[in-house]
Order: sequence, then C-alpha cells, then structure tokens
Amino acid sequence: MNPDIRRERENATFNTEILTNILDGCAEKTKRRREIESLVVSDPDFQHDDLNFMSRSERYDAAVKKSSQMIMKLRDYGISDPEEIYFYKRIARGNFHEAFGLHYTMFLPTLYSQCTPEQRKKWLPLAENFKALGTYAQTELGHGTHIRKLETTATYDPSTQEFVLNCPTVTSIKWWPGGLGKTSNHAIVLAQLYTQGKCHGLHAFIVPIRCMKTHQPLPGVTVGDIGPKFGFDEVDNGYLKLDNVRIPRENMLMKYAQVEPDGSYLKPPSDKLTYGTMVFIRAMIVGESARALSKSCTIAIRYSAVRHQSELRPGEPEPQILDYQAQQYKLFPLLAAAYAFTFVGQYMSNTYHRITGDINQGDFSQLPELHALAAGLKAFTTWAANAGIEVCRMACGGHGYSRCSSLPDIYVTFTPTCTYEGENTVMMLQTARYLVKCYRQVREGQQLSGTVSYLNEPQRLQPQPVSSRPTVVNINDLASLVEAYKLRAAKLVEVAAKSLQGELQRSISQEDAWNNSSIELVRASDAHCHYVVVELFAAKLSEISDTAVHSVLNTLALLYALHGITLNSGDFLQAGLLTVPQLSQITQRIKALMVEIRPNAVALVDSFDYRDETLNSVLGRYDGNVYESMFEWAKRSPLNRTEVHESYYKYMKPLRSKL
Amino acid sequence: MNPDIRRERENATFNTEILTNILDGCAEKTKRRREIESLVVSDPDFQHDDLNFMSRSERYDAAVKKSSQMIMKLRDYGISDPEEIYFYKRIARGNFHEAFGLHYTMFLPTLYSQCTPEQRKKWLPLAENFKALGTYAQTELGHGTHIRKLETTATYDPSTQEFVLNCPTVTSIKWWPGGLGKTSNHAIVLAQLYTQGKCHGLHAFIVPIRCMKTHQPLPGVTVGDIGPKFGFDEVDNGYLKLDNVRIPRENMLMKYAQVEPDGSYLKPPSDKLTYGTMVFIRAMIVGESARALSKSCTIAIRYSAVRHQSELRPGEPEPQILDYQAQQYKLFPLLAAAYAFTFVGQYMSNTYHRITGDINQGDFSQLPELHALAAGLKAFTTWAANAGIEVCRMACGGHGYSRCSSLPDIYVTFTPTCTYEGENTVMMLQTARYLVKCYRQVREGQQLSGTVSYLNEPQRLQPQPVSSRPTVVNINDLASLVEAYKLRAAKLVEVAAKSLQGELQRSISQEDAWNNSSIELVRASDAHCHYVVVELFAAKLSEISDTAVHSVLNTLALLYALHGITLNSGDFLQAGLLTVPQLSQITQRIKALMVEIRPNAVALVDSFDYRDETLNSVLGRYDGNVYESMFEWAKRSPLNRTEVHESYYKYMKPLRSKL
Repeated sequence: MNPDIRRERENATFNTEILTNILDGCAEKTKRRREIESLVVSDPDFQHDDLNFMSRSERYDAAVKKSSQMIMKLRDYGISDPEEIYFYKRIARGNFHEAFGLHYTMFLPTLYSQCTPEQRKKWLPLAENFKALGTYAQTELGHGTHIRKLETTATYDPSTQEFVLNCPTVTSIKWWPGGLGKTSNHAIVLAQLYTQGKCHGLHAFIVPIRCMKTHQPLPGVTVGDIGPKFGFDEVDNGYLKLDNVRIPRENMLMKYAQVEPDGSYLKPPSDKLTYGTMVFIRAMIVGESARALSKSCTIAIRYSAVRHQSELRPGEPEPQILDYQAQQYKLFPLLAAAYAFTFVGQYMSNTYHRITGDINQGDFSQLPELHALAAGLKAFTTWAANAGIEVCRMACGGHGYSRCSSLPDIYVTFTPTCTYEGENTVMMLQTARYLVKCYRQVREGQQLSGTVSYLNEPQRLQPQPVSSRPTVVNINDLASLVEAYKLRAAKLVEVAAKSLQGELQRSISQEDAWNNSSIELVRASDAHCHYVVVELFAAKLSEISDTAVHSVLNTLALLYALHGITLNSGDFLQAGLLTVPQLSQITQRIKALMVEIRPNAVALVDSFDYRDETLNSVLGRYDGNVYESMFEWAKRSPLNRTEVHESYYKYMKPLRSKL
Repeated sequence: MNPDIRRERENATFNTEILTNILDGCAEKTKRRREIESLVVSDPDFQHDDLNFMSRSERYDAAVKKSSQMIMKLRDYGISDPEEIYFYKRIARGNFHEAFGLHYTMFLPTLYSQCTPEQRKKWLPLAENFKALGTYAQTELGHGTHIRKLETTATYDPSTQEFVLNCPTVTSIKWWPGGLGKTSNHAIVLAQLYTQGKCHGLHAFIVPIRCMKTHQPLPGVTVGDIGPKFGFDEVDNGYLKLDNVRIPRENMLMKYAQVEPDGSYLKPPSDKLTYGTMVFIRAMIVGESARALSKSCTIAIRYSAVRHQSELRPGEPEPQILDYQAQQYKLFPLLAAAYAFTFVGQYMSNTYHRITGDINQGDFSQLPELHALAAGLKAFTTWAANAGIEVCRMACGGHGYSRCSSLPDIYVTFTPTCTYEGENTVMMLQTARYLVKCYRQVREGQQLSGTVSYLNEPQRLQPQPVSSRPTVVNINDLASLVEAYKLRAAKLVEVAAKSLQGELQRSISQEDAWNNSSIELVRASDAHCHYVVVELFAAKLSEISDTAVHSVLNTLALLYALHGITLNSGDFLQAGLLTVPQLSQITQRIKALMVEIRPNAVALVDSFDYRDETLNSVLGRYDGNVYESMFEWAKRSPLNRTEVHESYYKYMKPLRSKL
C-alpha cells in the first residue's frame, strides 16, 4: 500500500466499520452486501477489460451478455430479495447501466400494476422468463414533459376487435426509451385512445415490436437505436414508429380503464392510481445522487492524499495536495453533501415505504407532501451532485480527464438524472406549487404539518431592520443553523407567493403570473429543499451513539450548513438572519472545520466502502498505487495495439513525399 | 425554414450583419472569413459522416487525414496569414481538435524562439516540411503544475558530446502531450540538465523519438497513447519513457542557456524571455471561452425557439420553450456572458499585441499586469463557459444528451481549458498574488495604473453601517454598476490582504499564511476578474455607433452585470454597496431586461454567424428543421447497420432456451 494513504488511515479518529454499518443500515446488512459483492468479484465471467477500450457496438454486446449472465447466476444463487439483487447488480454494472434495465424498472412493474387478472396470466410468464423482453415507450421526438400532448394514437376497430396504432407525424415517433432500439421485442406504448369517434386521452398498450422467433421488426414497425449519446453507450435507447400496427383489444392494459368489445369506453375509478411509481423512482434518484457524489469524492480524496505537488514551505518536499486549503474547500463540502444526501436518500426510501403502507390502507393524506418533496429533492440533489462530480474530476488535475479515473464515466452515467423522470426545473416548479398552496392555506387559517410546518409561523417573517432585531443564528450550533435555513425558506416562499400576487394584481392571468414568477418560485423550492437536507442531516446525528463517529459527522453537518450559507449569503443577509460580521466569522469557522476534517478525510471516504471493482478508478484505488496502474492501463489501450498506426502509411508518409 | 424561427428573425429590432461585423472586427474581415469558410464547406474532401459514429482509432485516422489535407490545401490556396489559416482550420475542425495541433502551437514556436541560428538552419526546414513532426513534452505522470520538480534528466557526457536522457521513475514518464502517442517523430523534452556533476534546472532538448523512415520508436524510447479520455478522441495524447537515450549536444535548445563541448554551463541572460508564449496562450483561451459559450447558446436558443412544450394558457397551443421565464433565466445571462467574453477576448488579443510591441522595444513594465490578467481571466471565463455549456445542454431537455446536438462534443472539447495551460485555481491564486502586491504598494504610497488602479482609493472602503451611507448604485445605469463591481473587488482584495496579515500575526510562515488565506484570495481574484469583464463590456459599448445594435448590447450588458450581482448578492450587501430593497428591484429589472431580449434572442445568436457545418448540431440548425434531421441522423448510426444485433444470437436467444 502507498505509505501516504496508509498513514491517512492510521491517523483517523474513528472506526470506519461503525460508520459503514450506519450507512448500510446495520452490521448485518454490511456483511450480507459484502458477501454478495464477493460473488461478482470472484466470478471469472465478469472479468473484462475496460469498457472504454471498446466500440459502442462491443459495449452494447458486453452489456447484453452481462444482463443475460446475471439472470442465470441470480437464479443459480437463489438470490431473490430485491435489495440483494440490487447489491449484486450494482457491483456487476460498475459505473454503467444494464442492457435490460427498462424491462425491470418499467415493463414488469407496469404489467404488475396495470394488468387485469387474465392479462397477468398471459403476460407475466412471458415477461418473467424474458420471452417477452420489454420497455416503456412514452416520450416522443417532439414531446417530453407535457405528456398530454403525445401524438401517437390507438384507434379501436370493433370490426376486428383490434387497436390500430399510428405515429402520424415525425414528432410523434417514440424516442429515448432504454432498450427499445435493439433489445426489446415488446413495448408498452402510451397512446391517445380513440374509440367510437372520441379521444379518451392517454392509455397504455402492450405492443409486440419484434418477432419473438427471429427478432426481426414486425410489419408496420420501424425501430432502431437513436445513435450515440453523452454516455449510456451500453444502452440502446431507441426510436419506434408505428404505421397501422394492429394489436388485439386485450393488449390494452385494462385494470383501470377499459374498452369493451363493441368499443364502449369505461373510465378508470381514479387517476391517482399510477402516481406511486413516479414518486418512488424520484425518491430513489436521491440515493443515486448520494452514490454518484460519494464515489466521486472517494476517488478525488484518495488521489489527493497520494498526489504531491508544488510547495508549501521552501525546501521541503512537495506536500499532498489534500493539504492545500483550496483543495479542501473544493472537496470537503462535497464530502459533507455526499453524507447529507445519503441520509436524505435513506429518509426518502423509508418515507416512501411508510406512506405506501398508508396508501394501501386507503390513506392518501401524505402523498401530496411526499410527491412535492420527491420532486424537489430529486432536482436539488441531482443538480448538486452533477456539479459536484465535475468539481471532483477537475480537482484531480489532468488525470481526472483520463477515462482511467472513471470520473468521466460517473458523470455521463449520472447527468441524465437531471432531466429524466421529470426535468429538474419542472420539478422545482412542482414543489413550488405545493409550497405556495401551503402558504395560502396558512393565510386561510389552516395548520400545516410535516416538512412545511414552518410556514405556520408567519409572525417571525415580518421585515425588521437588521440592527433592531436579535441575531437568530449561533453559527456553532447545528440546531440554530437548521432554524436559519427554515426561516430563509419561509422568507423565500413568501417572496414567491407575493410575486404571484403582485402579478395577478396587474390583472395578468393565473398562468402568466405563474410564468412571470418562475425565478422566485424556483428559488423558494431550492431554499425549501436545502432546509430539508440540513434538517435531515441534523436529525440523523441524534440516532448515532458512537461518540467518535458522531463527532466527525457533526463536523461535516456544520460544514454543509455553513458552506451553504456562504453560497447563499445574500438570502440570509436579506432576511436579516445573519449580520455582516457573522459572515466573516463563518469563513473562519469553515476553515477550522476543514482542519478538523482533514485527518479523517480518507477514512470518511473509506467508510462508503466502495470496492475497487465498483469504482473502477485508477486514481481512486484503495491501495493508492496510482501511477504504476495508470501506465499499465494506458499500455493496454486500443491505439497501442500496433507500434505504428495505419494513418502513418496512409497520410503522413505520402504527405512528406509531396512537400 | 421552420416558421417559428423565421418569425423570430423577422421580429428582431436590429441588423445582424452589423453586429457580425463588430464581432469580426469590420465588414472586410467578415467577408474574408466567409470566403475562407466556403472553401472548406464546398470541399468534397472534407465531407464525412459524424465522427461520433466512429471508433477511437477511426477518429484518430480521420484527424490525421484532415491535418494532412489541410497542409496541402492551404499551400494550394496560398493562404499564409495566421488569422486566415485560423479561419480555415476552425471550420475544418468543427467541434474537435487537430491531430498535428501541438506541432503548430508548441513545437514550431519553441523552435522559432529558442533555436540558435545554426539550429534554425537545421531544424526549421525539417519541421516546416513536416519531416520532423513534433510535440512538446513537459508534464510528467507525477508532475504538472510545479514544473521545477520534473524528474526527467539530461546528463551531459563530454566524452561523446551527447546528452543522455532518462526517465528514472514511473512518475517521471512524460504524460499528456498531444500528438506524442502516435503522430510525432520528435519531441521537445523538458529535462533537468546535469553537467559536470551539477544540476542546472530545466532545459529544453530536441529528442528524436521515432525513426524518420519507418516511424518505429527509436532504441531506448517507450512511447504510446495514454488511452481514452473525456473527449479528445482524435488526439493521441501520449506517454514517453526515455532510457539512456543519447542525443547530440547540438540538440539542446541553446539560444539562451548553453552547454559547451567540455560541459561548461552558460546561464541564460534572463528568465523572463520565455514568459510571453504562456501569456499569449492564456489570453487566447479567453476567446475560446467566448466561442464555446456562443456556440452552445446558438444551439440552445435556436432549439428553444423551435421546441414547443407544456402550456402557458389552457386550451392554447404549446408555446415555444423560449417563452418560459425559467428558460430565459438559464439562457439569456449566458448569452450576455458570451458577448462579454467575446469583447474581453478581443481586448486580451489587442493588449497582448500592444504589449508585445512594448516588450520588443525593451519595455517590460506592463507585463506583470497582463500576466496576472491573463491568468485570472483564463480561469474566470473558462469556469463560467464550462458550466454554461452544461446549462445550455440541459436546457435542451433530453435531446441535449444526444451527440447529434453537439453539446456533449463542445463540452468535452472545451472542459480541459479549465486545467491545461495553468490549472484554474492556481491561476486565480497567481492573480491574487499580484492583487495583494498592488494593495501593499498602495499602502506604501505608490500610485497604481491600469486595471488595478481602483486599489488607489482606499478611503471609499472604510466600513460604514449600511443605513448611514448613501447608496452607491443606480441599478439602471451601467457605469454605476461598473463602479459597484469595482468597489466589491477593492473590498475583497482588502479582505484577502487582511486575512494574510492576520495569519502572519499569528506568527505563521509566509507560506502557511498564504495557504490559510486561499479562500479569500481566490474570491478576491474572482471579484477582480468579474469587474474587468463588466468594465470591458461597458467600454465596448462606447465604440458602437449603430443605435439599434447599441441598444440591444446595452440590454445584454445590464443583464450580465445585474445577474452577476444576484449571484453574489452577499458580497454587495456585505460591502454596503446595495440595500436589501434594491435586491428585489434587481430581480424585477432582470425580468424586464429578459422581456426586452426575448424578440432579439435568435438574432443575437445568428450574429455570431456560425455555419451549420461549424456547429454540426441538429438542434442548432439555422433552418430549425430539427426533428426530421434527428431521425435521419439516428438512422445512419452504427447500431442500425443491421436490423438484429449479433448479441441477440449470442446471448438473448440462448438465454430463453435455458429458462
């Protein structure tokens, strides 16, 4: 092991194993996760060269192979618990995606939730045995966020008891679904249902798109890969154009809405029934933000402990770059955010499961708050993690640009979360809609509960000159900082609500008023989410009994909160929550916290407990042997397969003879 | 043409051609640039399919081909003016780099500036005729920023009158130089010179690395490609390990320092002589920031004029997404920044040439300021453009992730500017060193000139309670905003200087004090650069006579300045330069400015005058025919060459039979 990184581990003030157990949930879970991970790591079928050395077609090929192998191996091992499957796949996938991903995340769950009993009998065996391999085709070339305007049609023909599916325009071509281009032989297609001359809006249909024997596209089906993207090389995101494709009436998912043989349409009993999956996926993305950021921090912090550069004191050896304040200021707030998001992810997962229980009991009361929170936190954490990965990459200097660092892979694999499952700005505006509604409910005398209960306290928000009010914040006390974030959020929700009101008084329509207040509305959501994150981080601390771990996490929580204040200091000053002298104190306090974190930085990323096989990063290796490994990696790369590249003979040599 | 985008052009309030001429410098230059661009666009040799459809090896091959062809064609056309060559290559390269890039930017210039007359006679004909194709090998696997610690050695052997070059450790392997892996047969190698038992520090040596006949690596030379990166697929960044490689004494570049046949070492007369190239490249990068950002804005704004989504008013058709305030708030400040950086780039280029003239007259007096400014503005503009490209990409929704948008290509091609030619944080600290020095000079009674002259006015910076001082800023007046930025910079330079002083009073060493003040120092540089950008934008306005163009640029300048204030409102409040009520007014003013910009948004990006062939973006097409082109592009992509991918037969079909 590299002596620098060994010394870092020796100097840590806490036991990383205890912290790993907290992150996993308990010691048992850590143990089981590691057992499952060992299955993958020791499996010769999963040994392969760096995917970055392959062409797109080879990478897709490798991903299909891996997806197929995982199915067999999980059956052989008898692993069926969803969390255990997740552990297994997570390490097998590394920094990439699974070729059959949409089959699991969208095709099967939609069949489970929207099939009638007869449909289940037919389709589940086909889908569960991968004879029907499917995806979920919603987004169209010209339509993303606003699904009501999707153009694909499904017109019922009672004479044959079939639906006729059509993509009538270029903009109506289904576009983006994962696994659609080459992998799937079925798609659940979202289409406007027409029957008896009337449009009944969007419904879901099971559409066979490729022959189950030959895998050739079926008549009327134009299907293919949408071409290279920013990452996702292993996934065949696809397009699908349907021209008079006929499917039996029974291929409409009919658990809720129905079309009878004569073409009569029966409405679904409620439109909230398919609401849950979306909230679930968004809530899970919060956890993905934590993972992407914690992986990136692991790589950047370990490398910063190994890398020596420049000089702090003349004549002395080059210091570890982790000793530079500027480097710490880049990485330690991100490390703190990685921990914060991990705990927020745990909270979202727990809350989702709790509320799902309530819903199954018929109690929908907490769904709106969860929906708003999932939307906002999805946006808040993905934006922060997205920017944070790039900060980590650039904190590794030139070597961060090499694919051997894996930071580019982590970025391109993660960045779509800012857009899919709800574009982030749209998400922030959804959360804002909920916040403004709550704000108005309070004005009307209602009492709120849950994460928005702070809006109950309007008296604290009256504008007062800074000098005449007592300072709210004690910058050394986490509870006081939570309070400051809460008041900032309350203030910005009020500003947004008043902006809306002001626009309406200028006799503008509701819709224009909303659009003209977007800046304030997004800002309000952002402040709300920021408060929730700080609050949940603080709440998590109360659960931690180990003194040493508690202490280091408390330091991180303070850093997270104070750093967020400096980035948004205008808000806090404007709301009178801070004084100008306090702002300078905060910078000093941040420096002191970074000094506290410094000896534990490597131990804090070790606690995330990523195996080298998961990170796949030369810079982030546990043993710190960075340079030798980088040289070995480079020598294996494709351009080095010949000493002289063919372009020399084709172009460079002839050029010389001409000059 | 798409009717939406036609309507946008009809509604513009100014003549785009006039603005294009301003950006080019004059109408003549616009004309000549377009003539040269037409040569490339109409050339069948430069027609090729999307590089994103190719493997890394194919892309490198295509780049070598293009580099070779450009040499012949430029000779045939008789184009030899550097700016005209730049126009030609810029459009031929598109969003990518040139295979022979380092030969032009580093190998040749180093020969020109550091060869003795005899060396020129030998090497220039070889290099100018591409018989010697070269690169510049400085960075090592373990050494980047701090070049004094480079480990490669060149030891003089008087018995044979040769230098013996060695990379004695893994960390001393030359790493990263463009064109080193496969293309170059020579490298200028930076190495520690040892002669007569003494080390004389870094010197430059011409080292043949591949046989000029066979292109095979020479004995003792281990050379190869460093492997795939985040972009730069077409460039063979390389590694080079030298083991007892002997070169004649005459291969040391000896214009300044010299080693005589007996091994005696003669010192160079000054160490500032090679200072200029570095400043030049950094100054040029400012212009690259402007180009990358203006390309990205062109793509995102044109697409936002074509894309319709969601609803503003119930029952009405989906609006152009450019009508959403949230979308404007993402893109218009970036558009303003793209203009700002363009003008700053022009200023840097002009200033560089002016000061180079002074230097040639023996006047070095303005070099330190230029050096500090180039470092800081390089960092300031590349960071802003880097983040801005990603905002543009994500503002295009899902389609921004497709390689057909070219936004991923623009990003990965641009992002290394944050690290190469001086890592950005290191650059900011260099600028800070200059600012603190200036601050101290003022305290000692000196009077400063140039961009730092604002530090002469310390009396304006005394802390005063906000309520008791007159408000400095008129938020509707650009000059007043420039003044506010100036005072913010002065304040933050003072904060940084005082932090240093405070650390020193705690009897810490100079070096530790510097490190412990990094946060404040970077902040000071950032504020200084921000001020310079706002100032130069305002200054440019005074040169513009066309009323309509002046008006729209003035709107952009105000937006740039006010948006920057909202992002850093804490600084302005803290310095007492703004009041809390003014901050709300600024948001309102920003909204009003965006409404003013809206009808001119497409015309403002049209004025950058990028040809479709330069942008290579389906989303950014001039004619707005986005969706049809995207479908055509996708159909050509590699995974669609067969209807059924081989992985179906290899894995998916066998899997089914097993289950």
